[in-house]
Amino acid sequence: MEQTIRDAALLRTAVGAPVAPPPRLLMGPGPITVDPRVLRAMSAQLVGQYDPAMTAYMSETQALYREVFRTRNEATVLIDGTSRAGIEAALVSLITPGDKVLVPVFGRFGHLLREIAERCGAEVHVREVPWGQVFTLEALEEAVREVRPALVALVQGDTSTTMNQPLEGVGAMCHRYDALLYVDCTASLAGNPFEMDAWEVDAATAGLQKCLGGPSGSSPLSLSPRAVAVVDARRSVEAGLRADPDSEEDTVPQAVRIRSNYFDLGMVLDYWGPKRLNHHTEATTMLYGARECARLVLEEGLEQGIARHRLHGEAMLAGVQGLGLEVYGDVAHKMTNVVAVHIPAVVDGEAVRAEMLHDYGIEIGTSFGPLAGTVWRIGTMGYNARKDAVLVTLASLEQVLRAHGAPVAPGGGTAAAQEVYAR
Amino acid sequence: MEQTIRDAALLRTAVGAPVAPPPRLLMGPGPITVDPRVLRAMSAQLVGQYDPAMTAYMSETQALYREVFRTRNEATVLIDGTSRAGIEAALVSLITPGDKVLVPVFGRFGHLLREIAERCGAEVHVREVPWGQVFTLEALEEAVREVRPALVALVQGDTSTTMNQPLEGVGAMCHRYDALLYVDCTASLAGNPFEMDAWEVDAATAGLQKCLGGPSGSSPLSLSPRAVAVVDARRSVEAGLRADPDSEEDTVPQAVRIRSNYFDLGMVLDYWGPKRLNHHTEATTMLYGARECARLVLEEGLEQGIARHRLHGEAMLAGVQGLGLEVYGDVAHKMTNVVAVHIPAVVDGEAVRAEMLHDYGIEIGTSFGPLAGTVWRIGTMGYNARKDAVLVTLASLEQVLRAHGAPVAPGGGTAAAQEVYAR
Repeated sequence: MEQTIRDAALLRTAVGAPVAPPPRLLMGPGPITVDPRVLRAMSAQLVGQYDPAMTAYMSETQALYREVFRTRNEATVLIDGTSRAGIEAALVSLITPGDKVLVPVFGRFGHLLREIAERCGAEVHVREVPWGQVFTLEALEEAVREVRPALVALVQGDTSTTMNQPLEGVGAMCHRYDALLYVDCTASLAGNPFEMDAWEVDAATAGLQKCLGGPSGSSPLSLSPRAVAVVDARRSVEAGLRADPDSEEDTVPQAVRIRSNYFDLGMVLDYWGPKRLNHHTEATTMLYGARECARLVLEEGLEQGIARHRLHGEAMLAGVQGLGLEVYGDVAHKMTNVVAVHIPAVVDGEAVRAEMLHDYGIEIGTSFGPLAGTVWRIGTMGYNARKDAVLVTLASLEQVLRAHGAPVAPGGGTAAAQEVYAR
Repeated sequence: MEQTIRDAALLRTAVGAPVAPPPRLLMGPGPITVDPRVLRAMSAQLVGQYDPAMTAYMSETQALYREVFRTRNEATVLIDGTSRAGIEAALVSLITPGDKVLVPVFGRFGHLLREIAERCGAEVHVREVPWGQVFTLEALEEAVREVRPALVALVQGDTSTTMNQPLEGVGAMCHRYDALLYVDCTASLAGNPFEMDAWEVDAATAGLQKCLGGPSGSSPLSLSPRAVAVVDARRSVEAGLRADPDSEEDTVPQAVRIRSNYFDLGMVLDYWGPKRLNHHTEATTMLYGARECARLVLEEGLEQGIARHRLHGEAMLAGVQGLGLEVYGDVAHKMTNVVAVHIPAVVDGEAVRAEMLHDYGIEIGTSFGPLAGTVWRIGTMGYNARKDAVLVTLASLEQVLRAHGAPVAPGGGTAAAQEVYAR
């Protein structure tokens, strides 16, 4: 009864009202304000799944993301889902139940990798450093030597702590111990250096909603030939596509079969590859968006885009310090594109966030787990890694902090940011 | 080297060219031409994941899809992925490894349910009728009596054969044997009657790219309280969101834990429900699209929309018969929104499809598995369940068939369709 009444009210609103979101500047850890060019690309009409125009867009998108990931991996595709879908596709396809998997954890998303690996049936070994820190190569090697995993699953940039795990040498080290290396670079890709081939990363996944300037819902993924070999050994073909669906042709033993159909990268690669074997119905609108995100990155230049993220990240860092806020974590290992600051003791963190949103239309981020209620996270990424976005955020935060009784130097935030820009 | 050269060419094209698909009328079994209103809704800018505007859109979308599914299920949400993602979310969340699952198969998508259930660790029992037919309630009951499954997984409308499985009484029968009923209504929803509550369906999933008039990439899903109870018993909370990530709080034994994080409906429901617990980053653009699809359906009226699908489906059926083509399968049990016709022996089916596409901009569908190369599938659904779309498809097909040497009565297709409209 209550639900019926509530639904009736919601329906009246929804049926009468086309989507018309309030204007927001999204300066949290993501999702961020989408580049209008990406939204425009996503408003294009569909073509059929095997239309020559569609297969051309697919091939182009693969080529574009090879550049973004800095790889020559043939197996570079999109997963139809959020960045988490890409993570799960990589892990469920690379982990055979019973495999030893090492997960070095330095924030929320490390715990996510651990959890997904467990659900894939792995024997998971965790190593942790306190939130706000990263692992040394030596610590990682020591863990690999002890565990002897089939796979090391590691986050590059963990927005929960803002840390950027150094990856140089990690892939080569893993390969010396016959382990594969998976990296979740959702939060870091295109805003921080990532060198898939040079760093010998075997599997990497991302999302559009951070430095790539798009909406969540498509996950770029790349596999090295070494990773493809693991998938190949577990490859099967859908029964419904065989002339005789009951034939055992192209099936693999149950024990090593990939535990998901949707995330079976063998099937996904056959769909994106020359065979073009039917699998899911491509989320074409998301593909158009993903393609446009990569075009934006490559038009600007990957290097130049990373430099832009570094510049505006440094300006925001200087700005929050100029406001008298204390930065969280090991600043030397911070991602370019997000900063966490301790919430001043005198203010209610959620009240400040709410006032930023409602009075200024600016969203800054809250935090999770052990950091819940203690830090705000402020992003400068993708479309919003811009001078005006940085300055208006700092100017607004200054007003709100003052209104809430926090001591702030007048103009201290914008002045400090401006100094970075003036360098 | 070859790849480098190919990629260089693709990159030149892609970086230089914004998405600009050729005009197509998509008259296959889906995806279909998207209603322009849906594309417009999807071009709206993002708001943050917990913005009051966003949570309102989420609640409205739930209310809208309760109407579309004809249910009062609180647990009515979107899965961020294609319709196949919704299927896998339902099955992996409802199937505990070792469960007996009955899959009655009458086409490709029945085989898909079988395969996904196997990958979820079920003991799968299959019953089959020849492609082109459906099951009687008696045959289903006999199978349930023999197998005594925990879950029956059934397709409503299988586009591979165009058949529409009658569902009245199936849920009540399953419940007499303590089995849950899952139904994949991707291809049928909003174009054929579907009564989730009246038919006692425990879990249903769909996609936007058929009768709902949207693009692939979001999967509406609904669970009955009975299904929610199964999920509740397997519920856990992500380690990364707990104050102490290593605490065992809110975890379940490994043996019953849902084998996927992305598709863990316990977590997905906590994210959509009053707790609003963080899970994935919502694919907001797809949510805007899904909301608009449901608005379109309810503005027209669910009944009226189904009647429209029935009318244009009958016109297309009469039209292809008027062209002298033989319809495939049990016409009495055909879905309203798609028809399969035998490819005349004198023509090359793929050459006809290619000419339809390149000379007339119209896509009709090929087929899979045992039907590969023997039938075309022609859809009239969503935005394309329109008189002009039906007539231009029939008129164009007539020209192409004649050019390829098939004997067709001049104007026979459009005349027969027009007779249906004139009734």
